[in-house]
Amino acid sequence: MRIEIAEQPEALSNTFDALLAQVGELAALGRDTRQVLFIARGSSDNAAVYGQYLCSARAGRLASLASPSLATAYRAVLDLRGVLAVAVSQSGATEEIVTTLEWARRCGARAVAVTNVAGSPLTEVADLALITQAGEELAVPATKTYTTQLAAMAVLALSLQPGGSGAEPPGGAGIGVEAPRGPGSGVEAGALRGVPGAVAAMLEVAPAAEALAERLVEVGTLVVSGRGYAYSTALEVALKLKETCYLTAVGLSYADLVHGPIAVVDHDTPALLVAAGDGPILPEMTGLARRIAGTGADVYGIGGDQEFVAACRSALPGPALPEHLAPFALIVPGQLLVEALARAKGLDPDAPRGLDKVTQTDG
Amino acid sequence: MRIEIAEQPEALSNTFDALLAQVGELAALGRDTRQVLFIARGSSDNAAVYGQYLCSARAGRLASLASPSLATAYRAVLDLRGVLAVAVSQSGATEEIVTTLEWARRCGARAVAVTNVAGSPLTEVADLALITQAGEELAVPATKTYTTQLAAMAVLALSLQPGGSGAEPPGGAGIGVEAPRGPGSGVEAGALRGVPGAVAAMLEVAPAAEALAERLVEVGTLVVSGRGYAYSTALEVALKLKETCYLTAVGLSYADLVHGPIAVVDHDTPALLVAAGDGPILPEMTGLARRIAGTGADVYGIGGDQEFVAACRSALPGPALPEHLAPFALIVPGQLLVEALARAKGLDPDAPRGLDKVTQTDG
Repeated sequence: MRIEIAEQPEALSNTFDALLAQVGELAALGRDTRQVLFIARGSSDNAAVYGQYLCSARAGRLASLASPSLATAYRAVLDLRGVLAVAVSQSGATEEIVTTLEWARRCGARAVAVTNVAGSPLTEVADLALITQAGEELAVPATKTYTTQLAAMAVLALSLQPGGSGAEPPGGAGIGVEAPRGPGSGVEAGALRGVPGAVAAMLEVAPAAEALAERLVEVGTLVVSGRGYAYSTALEVALKLKETCYLTAVGLSYADLVHGPIAVVDHDTPALLVAAGDGPILPEMTGLARRIAGTGADVYGIGGDQEFVAACRSALPGPALPEHLAPFALIVPGQLLVEALARAKGLDPDAPRGLDKVTQTDG
Repeated sequence: MRIEIAEQPEALSNTFDALLAQVGELAALGRDTRQVLFIARGSSDNAAVYGQYLCSARAGRLASLASPSLATAYRAVLDLRGVLAVAVSQSGATEEIVTTLEWARRCGARAVAVTNVAGSPLTEVADLALITQAGEELAVPATKTYTTQLAAMAVLALSLQPGGSGAEPPGGAGIGVEAPRGPGSGVEAGALRGVPGAVAAMLEVAPAAEALAERLVEVGTLVVSGRGYAYSTALEVALKLKETCYLTAVGLSYADLVHGPIAVVDHDTPALLVAAGDGPILPEMTGLARRIAGTGADVYGIGGDQEFVAACRSALPGPALPEHLAPFALIVPGQLLVEALARAKGLDPDAPRGLDKVTQTDG
């Protein structure tokens, strides 16, 4: 797992190379669609949550997540014309995801597969396949296959935004496509090119992650929270802690946390807050850190700015990326923490119990 | 809280009376829309999850949940023409929900308010208001305002389904509107009339809920899971346990549970599974109960059939309602359990810490 965490900058770079070349094709497929419907499970589902925010806030498309049971258990008959269905699966072989994408297409949707395995069953039921270039992932917990899925989400949003069909601008980097509407909106190909470097810089957080893991080794329950783009990161960190460290980690959006169950955070249940270094969400996250600290509970952080860090008992540094791209790098301290915590607990981070590499929900 | 749990049959009956009279109006508003976008937080969000399954599987409309931060933090500009935005808020005064419904309407959506307070701010930004008839709710944890929201979801689905604009069929009950497509689909007004009686019958579970509460009094963490229609019930039971009993209750869909974090269920962390008494999901839930029991962890149940009950260490009985209506009654044993557990822990179920009746996410 540790090795694969370190392979992410290269995997991302290779994935952007491959997928930015498909922007024209993807834009053409998406041109007559009005919205995006993601189909995914587990880590892929968390990548889709990032895609949902990116497509909605940056590309101006309504985006939502499908419940596969509608297709597999209830065989719902929906009119999905005008919908771009995007199925995300590392292996491309999870049966319920393949079945659900097939169903969406039968209901009239255009179908995109995002997978790390060329020629996998998922690609066969799609109009277009985006193959992430993570290489083979040996550890069971997804790391580089997750971040390269984020890359596919960014390329998707770039392709769907108004004026986004122009592929990479001439000259390669730094210019970017035209922003659609609103302040600072749009995803820029040039900005994406800066992502692998920002992810590489995060690898230096390893010793700090190790120190934080030592503090958390006796904790049985942890609440992980984020909002907006970083909500996907909070969910993914919580999932990894659950499946790799057998910790009861509750991934909650900021709003869901303050809207009720904030009472669960106490002396025995610390909070881990994930925040980008800028954007409209950051002051809220800093306020939340202060509020939780005020109850006497421990608050740990990933990312944020100086004020956010000051409000936390201890925080792992985040990247110097704009908020909408921060999830690529914010997840890295989380991965390093999970890996270190599993080892500190005497567990094997590479092969947790109860997990297979290809998950079959009904298996 | 206990009194209000018992008031649910009457509250439901009154709500169906009021809302079934609006089916024609609602059908007219929804006629040119192709999908439903729910806007909600907390318990209302769990009611919306039920609405999502009902609208998709029974009324043939794609339905999804909005992220209010897209409106409030990111001010996303989306094309929401053809979208029926349905905001759900007990008080009708939660600022971010009002703001988000206003935003949806400005983006081109038709706007429906579901609230228990006539004349509340939410109704002022809606094209049509569905006022639930729960009466005043004094206990902070939502009970009758939640189940009457479920009633609004059922009336919404009935109004949107093909042929659903005919309001209640002549004769009042038992006949129902025509099923749209597929086996056994559609929501029938006649069947809805049977719901209050089924909910009333569940009140007799109180002593069994009390006994189960005694068993759970030392438990710090519980995983609550369901799938399909009953997923909404699992989420609502988990939320109530968190906010009223300060228990770390993790609400997970069946698929998300088996897709990874099933490893968190162990000797210290029992599971509570919620299942309807019939339908395609039930065999999966029974299999899950067996699988968890096989690891040595405690499995408790709500609902299901004989086989499901046999697979659980102990189970609270569920209703004799078809799967798509079961959530109205499945929540009642959950509410009774939460109320009894709070008392058993020496807490006041009517006024948990950290919660107000009108929640402001940014307050």
